[in-house]
Amino acid sequence: MHYSQQLKKYGDSKSAIRELAAYGSRRAREIGEENVFDFSLGAPSVPAPARVTQTMLHLLQTVPPEKLHGYTAAEGDLSVREKIATYLSTRYGIENRPDRVYVMAGASAGLAMVTRALRDSSDDEFVCLAPFWAEYTVFIDTAGAQPVVVPPDYSTFEPDREAFEAAVNEHTKAVFIDQPNNPSGVLYREETLTWLANTLRKKEKEFGHPIYLIADEPYRELAFDGESPYMPHYYADTIIVYSFSKALSLAGERIGYIYVPESVTDGDIIYSVIKGAGRALGYSCAPALMQYTIAENLDITADISVYHRNRDLLYTMLTDLGFECVYPTGAFYMMVKSPSGDGKEFSHTAQAHDVLVTPSDTFGIPGYVRVSFCVSSDRITRSQPAFAQLAQHYGLRPAQ
Amino acid sequence: MHYSQQLKKYGDSKSAIRELAAYGSRRAREIGEENVFDFSLGAPSVPAPARVTQTMLHLLQTVPPEKLHGYTAAEGDLSVREKIATYLSTRYGIENRPDRVYVMAGASAGLAMVTRALRDSSDDEFVCLAPFWAEYTVFIDTAGAQPVVVPPDYSTFEPDREAFEAAVNEHTKAVFIDQPNNPSGVLYREETLTWLANTLRKKEKEFGHPIYLIADEPYRELAFDGESPYMPHYYADTIIVYSFSKALSLAGERIGYIYVPESVTDGDIIYSVIKGAGRALGYSCAPALMQYTIAENLDITADISVYHRNRDLLYTMLTDLGFECVYPTGAFYMMVKSPSGDGKEFSHTAQAHDVLVTPSDTFGIPGYVRVSFCVSSDRITRSQPAFAQLAQHYGLRPAQ
Repeated sequence: MHYSQQLKKYGDSKSAIRELAAYGSRRAREIGEENVFDFSLGAPSVPAPARVTQTMLHLLQTVPPEKLHGYTAAEGDLSVREKIATYLSTRYGIENRPDRVYVMAGASAGLAMVTRALRDSSDDEFVCLAPFWAEYTVFIDTAGAQPVVVPPDYSTFEPDREAFEAAVNEHTKAVFIDQPNNPSGVLYREETLTWLANTLRKKEKEFGHPIYLIADEPYRELAFDGESPYMPHYYADTIIVYSFSKALSLAGERIGYIYVPESVTDGDIIYSVIKGAGRALGYSCAPALMQYTIAENLDITADISVYHRNRDLLYTMLTDLGFECVYPTGAFYMMVKSPSGDGKEFSHTAQAHDVLVTPSDTFGIPGYVRVSFCVSSDRITRSQPAFAQLAQHYGLRPAQ
Repeated sequence: MHYSQQLKKYGDSKSAIRELAAYGSRRAREIGEENVFDFSLGAPSVPAPARVTQTMLHLLQTVPPEKLHGYTAAEGDLSVREKIATYLSTRYGIENRPDRVYVMAGASAGLAMVTRALRDSSDDEFVCLAPFWAEYTVFIDTAGAQPVVVPPDYSTFEPDREAFEAAVNEHTKAVFIDQPNNPSGVLYREETLTWLANTLRKKEKEFGHPIYLIADEPYRELAFDGESPYMPHYYADTIIVYSFSKALSLAGERIGYIYVPESVTDGDIIYSVIKGAGRALGYSCAPALMQYTIAENLDITADISVYHRNRDLLYTMLTDLGFECVYPTGAFYMMVKSPSGDGKEFSHTAQAHDVLVTPSDTFGIPGYVRVSFCVSSDRITRSQPAFAQLAQHYGLRPAQ
């Protein structure tokens, strides 16, 4: 064929999220934006901190343009990598290794690169802990490897332990983990992390090769009830993929970093192979102005108290109406169980009430919808009557 | 293996250009930057136009950050695509099709995406017209296809016609062309473009499938003696990969676009497959601030008169000393023939005189060096004695 059959599939496929967004735009033109309760998107609603804007203005006003906008090293400007490494070293009490920081164009870029860097054979398997961000399987499939999905224990939204142990085999190259989780907002408990690390260490020994944990961290800073765990503290073979998209509300600017901790098996080689992956995928360097900008703002975040307040507001509102919700300790998403047991049906019925929520099937599990609360608090409050009608439709009994 | 053998190769490989740059930095610390005549790099020396900086400042001061730095559509913000399509339509007298513009993170990204979008089988071949930018072969190899190199006719630095006709066969998916050429600065003559288009049309008919021309255009605006040809005017199945890196001196910011003209066979499908490729490679969107910035500056370029002047200065200086040079009509590179016939030897000998130039082997041909003139005119003038010593070393006779 004169084009890629595999990539045509991904170019054509309409994601449920984008279809909802398109419907939302059309519907807003019909009945007014204020009457459409769109909870389908995952874009930060809080502005970037004023200091971030000030940094950009200052750089533009003081640095010669040919320097400011010039190529950096493919792995990022050295001064930027030094600042990130020093920050990580101080914050997590780890080594200071700028030569293990690869500044890249957001978490998507990092995940695509790391997946390709670790893939060596079409038998290679990458484990996704459901629910998970759907693009993982796109990166795995197009790298020429096999995705393996592990279902959750629905009582905790942590991995089903038996299923996980059965899923990891001699072909397993890596396991994706994101905390706080998209779409559930869940942080795994301490004992779960310890079990996960012990299991992976046991499997590494059993199969005689490293099994990497890819810690996908776009939501790291959005934890409401205590800090997100730093996975290299639990498991040596962890590769960090961090993004400033949500932490600094810079999602469209494509800026983040990969960190290969000192503890990682063959870490220098892995770092070098990641560089090879960046070259193969055409990532000359991460956007230069954004590199210099985040380097001056590592210690701050956007005002996440808005998401925290929204979480409380939405959780109380929906549980009061009788909906069964997974309590999110971070990110800006909440999983709500479909009263009919069918996530698509629930999403469809909600749509008829101008409430837009994403079926959980998109994230590898049935029976739920994802409600995004990266919206104005006002939208949540005003959606109460619509959700109340939905509760009535399903015959839910208000909580006492 | 627990990592990609193929990508390790690209992560490890030291490019001649980067090694020269590293040597240049070390040497500058020893003898002073002003005494190292580094002509190895391809980074714009001219600043971005003041209007570009003003646009960024204005956007930062007037657009709410959550909007300015938010995700755009994967293919680029619609208003940006509309402005690009209208500009192309007016400039080249073509259709106005924003739905065929894909705003992406620079030419490297575009080339990686288009190569993968067109590749469907490991037998697929992509033709590179030597001399060519070395990363073409990285994109082709890592997409899982075969690069086929066509040597130049050394009297013109245009493709050897016989070799080209022999190289295009039933497996040929696409041909890369960049004008003005990196590393030769050459624009093909009118008759050559017509021959190229006729040959490809003949081959399309013979083999019964499209053969796409990938017009790689980072240097389009850097043409000194008349405008660069617009390839869709010659050949219908041309896909444009344009970059603002050199046109607006924004190389580190990663911004450009792919354009799939109306004339392209299965153009809607190709555009969709390119979207699939962007998704597979983790390109969520091109950097948002840069999208809005270039949209307001499509009609201007950085001050290319500096490169024009440098071209004249360098060409006169080197030919006066007896060096044989390929006359560049664009870009900011000049090919100089090695007096010994060996490009690497010439580069090495020049290095001993603190003159850094890149062996042509990097670009798929032997026997030359590439001299980059994206430097201060002063550096060219001050390098005269060093080049004179080199001429003497090789026993060259000054031109009369």
